Amino acid sequence: MSLEAKNLIGYQAVAGKGAGIQAVDPATDERLAPVYHEVSDADFDRALDLAQTAFLQYRELSDAARAQFLDSIAAEIEADSEAIIQRAMQETALPHARLQGECARTCNQLRLFAAVVRQGAYRDIRRDEAMPQRQPPRPDIRYRKIGLGPVAVFGASNFPLAFSVAGGDTASALAAGCPVVVKAHNAHPGTSEYVGRAVQRAAQRCGMPEGVFALLYGEGNRIGEKLVGHPHIKAVGFTGSRAGGLALLKLAQARPEPIPVYAEMSSINPVYLMPDALATQAEALGRALVAAMTMGAGQFCTSPGVVFAAAGAGFDAFTAAARAALAVQTAQTMLTPAIARAFEQGIQNLAAHAQLLAAGEASGGIHSCRARLFVVEGDVFAGNEALRQEVFGSAAVIVCCRDFAQMQMLTEQLEGQLTAAVHATADDDVGQLKSLLSQLERKAGRIVFNGFGTGVEVCGAMVHGGPFPATSDSRSTSVGATAIDRFLRPVCYQDVPADILPEAF
Amino acid sequence: MSLEAKNLIGYQAVAGKGAGIQAVDPATDERLAPVYHEVSDADFDRALDLAQTAFLQYRELSDAARAQFLDSIAAEIEADSEAIIQRAMQETALPHARLQGECARTCNQLRLFAAVVRQGAYRDIRRDEAMPQRQPPRPDIRYRKIGLGPVAVFGASNFPLAFSVAGGDTASALAAGCPVVVKAHNAHPGTSEYVGRAVQRAAQRCGMPEGVFALLYGEGNRIGEKLVGHPHIKAVGFTGSRAGGLALLKLAQARPEPIPVYAEMSSINPVYLMPDALATQAEALGRALVAAMTMGAGQFCTSPGVVFAAAGAGFDAFTAAARAALAVQTAQTMLTPAIARAFEQGIQNLAAHAQLLAAGEASGGIHSCRARLFVVEGDVFAGNEALRQEVFGSAAVIVCCRDFAQMQMLTEQLEGQLTAAVHATADDDVGQLKSLLSQLERKAGRIVFNGFGTGVEVCGAMVHGGPFPATSDSRSTSVGATAIDRFLRPVCYQDVPADILPEAF
Repeated sequence: MSLEAKNLIGYQAVAGKGAGIQAVDPATDERLAPVYHEVSDADFDRALDLAQTAFLQYRELSDAARAQFLDSIAAEIEADSEAIIQRAMQETALPHARLQGECARTCNQLRLFAAVVRQGAYRDIRRDEAMPQRQPPRPDIRYRKIGLGPVAVFGASNFPLAFSVAGGDTASALAAGCPVVVKAHNAHPGTSEYVGRAVQRAAQRCGMPEGVFALLYGEGNRIGEKLVGHPHIKAVGFTGSRAGGLALLKLAQARPEPIPVYAEMSSINPVYLMPDALATQAEALGRALVAAMTMGAGQFCTSPGVVFAAAGAGFDAFTAAARAALAVQTAQTMLTPAIARAFEQGIQNLAAHAQLLAAGEASGGIHSCRARLFVVEGDVFAGNEALRQEVFGSAAVIVCCRDFAQMQMLTEQLEGQLTAAVHATADDDVGQLKSLLSQLERKAGRIVFNGFGTGVEVCGAMVHGGPFPATSDSRSTSVGATAIDRFLRPVCYQDVPADILPEAF
Repeated sequence: MSLEAKNLIGYQAVAGKGAGIQAVDPATDERLAPVYHEVSDADFDRALDLAQTAFLQYRELSDAARAQFLDSIAAEIEADSEAIIQRAMQETALPHARLQGECARTCNQLRLFAAVVRQGAYRDIRRDEAMPQRQPPRPDIRYRKIGLGPVAVFGASNFPLAFSVAGGDTASALAAGCPVVVKAHNAHPGTSEYVGRAVQRAAQRCGMPEGVFALLYGEGNRIGEKLVGHPHIKAVGFTGSRAGGLALLKLAQARPEPIPVYAEMSSINPVYLMPDALATQAEALGRALVAAMTMGAGQFCTSPGVVFAAAGAGFDAFTAAARAALAVQTAQTMLTPAIARAFEQGIQNLAAHAQLLAAGEASGGIHSCRARLFVVEGDVFAGNEALRQEVFGSAAVIVCCRDFAQMQMLTEQLEGQLTAAVHATADDDVGQLKSLLSQLERKAGRIVFNGFGTGVEVCGAMVHGGPFPATSDSRSTSVGATAIDRFLRPVCYQDVPADILPEAF
């Protein structure tokens, strides 16, 4: 199957007419055919009208029908997986094995939401039976959740499959009964088209209402802004930069009818090395930190960016091990030239306030990420907000803390985080650990013991969210079964006759 | 117990220093002693710091301890109920029986949330057990919801007890583990003080951390704006006007860390009279409409403001019965002089586009609400947005619809609503009713059959919410057990050792 470079609207593929969009292979700077063109205003309007019309039918479908659609998307992606992965490799420079895993994860995620829909608990059905004898009589009241309406999805460059066209936002919105209009990410337009076609085929094969899904291309921000401002759109899913997320949030709030924005944005994912863990596992922790921070060139929203370690036994062994491990790390090509430039700028910002402890191998290649580790005293960290800013890529700052009290004081300064990781042994102080856990609950969406937050399991109990600016809405998660809640609202039915009530009751 | 006219901060009562605030008896225009003074900036800061400190302890208390506190607030209010009701009568001109009912409802609501907390399901605990054999191994992941942080509450003038100092927002926030800082409504400062003292006594008797509750007075908007902008505040509950709610929403969104605002604002609560119901129950429906719209001088957010009736059999009998019933309705004093002025302005706006069908009795009293009913053809209603604006008070517009298709077209034009009410018999068209219900689900938070939305049952399945501008957040309800969800966020725990995990697991 070859790429056609078209917008996907309803069951059609529609050539754009506006500015051209072309992917770049970040490993070679080579422009990749074909050239996509921005969707015309008329086709944009048609896509949105179709989404609204589809919503009226799609929301009324049985749970079984929606679940089948989600399963079918997974099957269609799997059928094309090698073409998808090959194109994604070119567009992102991510390795085959990684993309293969991400593709499997994406399909698992679609099937998880199919299971969630079949199971039905997402509707949170409640009932208070009538009490006709009570004074005043109590009516019969039933409660359920229904879909919000068409959802705009903006994919991320760092997960071209799992957080893009058919990623978690799309899967959970479709599960909730909401049509989805995706703005294709300009860093992987071809991957987006392949996946979008898989969704389109699944919709057609399952007899879904036309308009349940659309994939639109646009240069710059114009189409994205139009999308968030369109009256048919009732919620927005976004994964990306803080600036990008905040811009969408502002647009959504300025609408005559404000709508929720679920933007997953910025996190430095603090790591805590407790005294006994540091004293007894210094070398292993040093190596594990380097493995976690260099995974995928650190291009994970959950990549560890700051490490709080107690001064004292093991600290020097830990930093020595990390330095040695980092020194032999090969530089990896980053997702886009712009991300590589921003990384080097971020490194300069850290270097202005902290001491460079170690660097990975330099690379002869372009747009590559040379990993860096910094070290700084707790007092210096306290006084420099720049050290608390996310640097997207393999960069971390080790903070040498005077004592546990300082570790907690520095933690209090942190903004909201996606994850926090604590390394401790059975001999570390339980009282301190409980106190730290209680503090981290207020700061992060997920707390990991004796590991790192880099891996995000797709399962029922996952939280991939957290207080601002980790996300724009701390009440939500973008991964895991409860991600569906983001696109639902409650309705109640008072004394509605049985033959009129929705079938769900 | 006499009023002291003080701000309630921690376990203290603190005299204000700023501008004076004095209640007015709307039935007499008499100023009511005492004079309250705006909280000083230093005391304001102390109240917020205490709330934050209290949060750290309060959120860790057992469910049983928080439930006991909520029950104790109810008991303290009941102990003072006669003083509270007498003062509320003076400040609001609402009758004794109504306030007695509202007081009971407020206490029931506190006890409902005590039961919700004891039952524990609000934490939505989930677990995915570890799969050490899987490749890669799956960690143990546990999920629960925790409180957001201190909550700012703005009470409503029309429910000085149930939607004010110890109303639904306060009860559900305290249930969620969030301290509450209430900005007292200037229309009922004395009622607020009495209820605030009851909460303060309960906190003290139950050994709650000092700062779990505060009641602050302020003239104009200054203190309210400071409250919404304060970094310790993590969510806002508001019931009141659209302009007021939107102003708070804007402030909350402009913060460096945006926070959720739950503003219940504006609704005209459409009523649908289906053909057979209209043909067979015209007179009864006319009388029932008048009873619903004049209840409490129409000063309910759920008061019916527009009635869609099919042209044809029964329409004239319906309007005649409504006219006759309205003509003998006594004018009632409204809550404040400003509300009475706004009502008359609203009536003029409706009269500019619709025909006056009937009016209630004129009153010799001041600030009273003379009920009005208007009638208009569907085509005229379609073309006049002014007819779709809420007029707070006893005012409704009957829309004579050509047919069911027009009824649905006019419904599509409506903004989001708190409630919609459908009157139908077993002989009305089931297909039409299902289609209407499906449409109303998208427009309203609660759909009532053969009744009106005026009564809001406090129970597990209630939804008192709806799409914008009924509320600022359609994903929420401000009444009923799930109102607690507004103040919670999810956190997950990955491989956290059993001796460190919170007791809830």
